Parts: sequence; C-alpha cells; structure tokens
Amino acid sequence: MHPFGLNKSETVAALGEEKLIAAVRRWLGPASPRSPFGIGDDCAVLPASRGRQLITVDPVIYPHHFNDAVPARAVGAKLLKRNLSDLAAMGGRPTAAVLALSLDPQVQLKWLEQFYRGLAACALKYRVAIVGGDIAEARGMVAASLTLLGEASGPRIVTRSGGRVGDSIYVTGELGRSLETGHHHRFVPRLAEGSWLARQAAVRAMMDVSDGLAKDLHALTPRGAVAALDAESLPRRKKADVRAAVADGEDYELVFALAAKADRQRFEQGWRRAFPSVRLTRIGQFVTPKNFPAAAINLAAFRGYEHLT
Amino acid sequence: MHPFGLNKSETVAALGEEKLIAAVRRWLGPASPRSPFGIGDDCAVLPASRGRQLITVDPVIYPHHFNDAVPARAVGAKLLKRNLSDLAAMGGRPTAAVLALSLDPQVQLKWLEQFYRGLAACALKYRVAIVGGDIAEARGMVAASLTLLGEASGPRIVTRSGGRVGDSIYVTGELGRSLETGHHHRFVPRLAEGSWLARQAAVRAMMDVSDGLAKDLHALTPRGAVAALDAESLPRRKKADVRAAVADGEDYELVFALAAKADRQRFEQGWRRAFPSVRLTRIGQFVTPKNFPAAAINLAAFRGYEHLT
Repeated sequence: MHPFGLNKSETVAALGEEKLIAAVRRWLGPASPRSPFGIGDDCAVLPASRGRQLITVDPVIYPHHFNDAVPARAVGAKLLKRNLSDLAAMGGRPTAAVLALSLDPQVQLKWLEQFYRGLAACALKYRVAIVGGDIAEARGMVAASLTLLGEASGPRIVTRSGGRVGDSIYVTGELGRSLETGHHHRFVPRLAEGSWLARQAAVRAMMDVSDGLAKDLHALTPRGAVAALDAESLPRRKKADVRAAVADGEDYELVFALAAKADRQRFEQGWRRAFPSVRLTRIGQFVTPKNFPAAAINLAAFRGYEHLT
Repeated sequence: MHPFGLNKSETVAALGEEKLIAAVRRWLGPASPRSPFGIGDDCAVLPASRGRQLITVDPVIYPHHFNDAVPARAVGAKLLKRNLSDLAAMGGRPTAAVLALSLDPQVQLKWLEQFYRGLAACALKYRVAIVGGDIAEARGMVAASLTLLGEASGPRIVTRSGGRVGDSIYVTGELGRSLETGHHHRFVPRLAEGSWLARQAAVRAMMDVSDGLAKDLHALTPRGAVAALDAESLPRRKKADVRAAVADGEDYELVFALAAKADRQRFEQGWRRAFPSVRLTRIGQFVTPKNFPAAAINLAAFRGYEHLT
C-alpha cells in the first residue's frame, strides 16, 4: 500500500494529535500496557531487570526499507523483527520496546492503522510490550525507529568477538535474494535458535547477517585471521548465485564461530533435534592468511550492502 | 549551521559507513563506553537495573525542531535535554541512551561532528552513557531520535495522575517565547528540581510543559475538575504576553499539583533554600467547574502547539 493519501479526510492531518494518539492506543491494544507502564505519561515505567540487559535500535524508512509493494502490516512487523534479530544474535529475549515515528501529515490513516496492527500482532507473538513512543511531524517522510530492550535468555550473552583461528563458521537458513523473494519482511527472527546456540559453550562468537556476509563477517573474524568460505557449501536461496548469497543483505540469519575442537557431528545432531526444519550449514572456517585455500571465496571481491554512499 | 553541504568531499557520502561509525565513536569519546557495553555489537549490554526503570523517546527533526540558526552542537544537546526533561518530570535520573539517526548522504561532516560533540558534552554533564545507535539513509532528512533510560532518583516516581480538586498548581521558571529567545535549545532540564519535588509527599502529580500549558495541563487535571489559572501570576518570559506564556510551547519547565492541605509557605521556603535562583510560581488551582473564578484564564480559548495538522 502507498503510505500517502490525497484525500485529506483520510490522512493523519484529519485526525489531529490527540485523536491520533487515542487511535494508536486502540490499534496497539493489548500489546501496549496501561500508563504508567505504557503510553500516557512523560516516561513509561519498566519493572526492574532480572539481570544484565540488552538494548538495540533499528529503523524502517520509506522507501529505503519498504516500498508500496510491502503491506503496511508487514512493515510494522519488519520493524520489530529487525530488532529481534539483533537480540537473537546475542542469545537474548525481548522485554519491551518504544517507537519513534516521523510522519508526513499526508500519511493515510489506513496505512498507519495497518502498520500499528502489524507491529502489535508481532509484539504479542514475541511477548514484547510496546511501552511508549513519540509521533513527530516530518514533511515527506514515513520513518519509524524502534528501540528494543531485552535480557539474556540463559546464563550467557554471546558477542561478536571470541572467534579464533581454526573455528568453523556456520550460518542458519539460506542466503541471498531477500528483496526479490519478500524474505526481507517475511523472515522469522532466529530467537529460539540464538538462545539455543548461546547455551552451547563451543559457540564462541555470533552475529546476525543483515548487510550480507561479505560485509558483516568481517566483524566476526579474529584479528590476523581471514574467513575462508567454501562456495559449494553456501546455503543459497532458490535462484541465488554466490554473489547474491554473500552480498545481497537483509538475510537476518545467524552466523557464528564454533570452536575448532568441538565435536561437530554431535553439535549438528543436537541442532537437528532442536530445529529439524531449520537448515544449518558449515560454510568455512577462520584461517591465517598464509593458509587461505586457493578454492575459497575471496570475500573482499564482493561488497555487502553499503549505507550512506 | 546549515546541515547540508554542496561539496561531496565534505559530506557523509564521502566517508562511507565504516569510517563514519569510527568517526562517531571518536566524536562521542568517553560519552560512549566500549563494546559490548557500547557501540560495536548487535546489541549493547547494560548492567542490571537497581529498581524500576524509566524510558522515554523524543526526536529532533530538521527543520521542525531546529533550523540553520541553531548551532549543531546545540541541536545535539537539545535532543538529549528534551528527553532529560521527561525524566525530570517523573523525578528520575538518567542512565543510558541510544540514538537513531536518519540522514541524507549530503549532510555536512562538520555539521554532524558538532552535533555529536554537543550530544557527548551534554551526556557527560548529565552522566548518560550513549551505548548504541543506528545511522540510516533517508533522502532529504536530518532526523535524530534518542531513547533515554533512567531510574527513580529517590523512593518515588511521580506520574501525571494524582492531582485533586483544591490542589495548587505550580510551575518552575518562566513561560513563553521559547523559540524567539533560544530557550528551546539553551534550557537546563529540571532534573535536580524534579528529584527534589518527587521527595515532597505533597507533590501529587507532575509533568513537563513542552507543548504549552494550554495543551499540556489537561493531562494533569483531575477528572471532573478544571484548572483555574490566574493571569497575573503567570511567570512570563520578557516580552511574553499571556497567550505566549500558555500556548508557545518548548518551555521544558515542570508543572505540578501540590496537595490542598500542604503548608504552602513552608514548601516554598524549602524550594528557595534548595533552588535559590530558580523561580517557582503558584499559578492557580484545580477547581470544580461551578467554582471556576470569573477572573481565571479560560485555557480552552488558547491552543498549545498542535502536531500533525
């Protein structure tokens, strides 16, 4: 759906701020607790955390992260799922979120309602309380930025650092052609998988793939090492070539380093028992530059998604 | 300073994403802790909270919340201070923040550096850790949205509800002409004052005035009551008339309800001892409609700042 409307009576401007906020509370429904634990005061009140917390922020901006072909409900869900994917990458689970919306007054109410209903349905599914937000005017814009709070789902938080030379590199799901196939908004954030992986001591480092392996994997690579990927083993989405698999971005899969000394067979069996329908692929390993195999993919020859250029 | 540059070599586009993030870390300096407690992983890690938490989100958007006349450093500070004002209104103190930036690639690096340096200086002053963020591309835009976390500064969090008929209405500082005088970015958030007020049991309800009393005071008014304000007593900024004082907005002052039975003289003496240089004014009280004084300001005749119309 196109976010903007021509007929003023059907746009945000027709409602005005007070009625708009009332409508937002209606659209969010049970996904948003009552004030002071939700919308309606200067701040929202959150219960004390049970331990260390995780926090992340990611936006969806028209037409950069969605276009008219993406249903407004899916845009709302995508906004939350992008952030859930970041939590999953550290083995976290979500608790609460706040939303900052920058809107042109000509945005259609119908679009906005579907956006909030999509967000609310996704929030209920993943047990995220939408506790507050802000709606500000911004000519020509439809931009939503969500800040997500979470906590460790188990005893450990997994960071990007910790991988070593010799570690295997694994990736969940399939890569490439996310935009063409609608995966970029239909994906399921790997929360359960991230939580399971964080409980495996042999998983040394983890992150999510959002700008493509060619760009993202650098952050997981130990200093002085390089990632040697085997082109044959890359789990490619249907019709995706190697370039698409490593450079397209918006995969929202987990990539992680498994300790060299880990029992790979046992580890993979454990995965298949826990997630029989989710593909897990060993795509290569971290090596020293002088041990870089001639047949490995030269990631430097590809570029992931580059922002702001 | 105008945020956009014509010469590409001096804009965000010239730097590219990776170098830009490195520059942001440099500009934030000690205001941003090291990963995983700051920028650099999928999420930032926060220590466990000491009790209930507060969370709020507010943006600054060009040209709605700042224009070329506002120094970029002041824009960065304003972004944080707007959120600090919301915390102050509940008697909170800040802990950490994340920042979502939506930028046109033509934004000048010089502008962005000053924005971040202003934010960092303000964050250090108020002991807020800038733990994470996101920078996304948005054609034609300069918009920043900050999510601020905090905690109660004492035993009590003060909400907007709790005022009763007969309660006095007080306001800190002066009102009106915020845009004309630069108060909208030079203001000092009332954190110390909000914290002190939250410790006074007779302060029943509190909020900050950001869209003007005419609009905001409604949220503090008990059901079935009306706010009867005395025009003579309104603390007006120099050259501000009554309309400006109640309708201009961006005052970032605290307005609160003091219990009818409280000893006002003692309360005001306590305030003067604590904040000798900050004006505190009793501007009226909550009454039943039938007791509305003929001489009181009819707030309904004014409109505060209306968003999205």
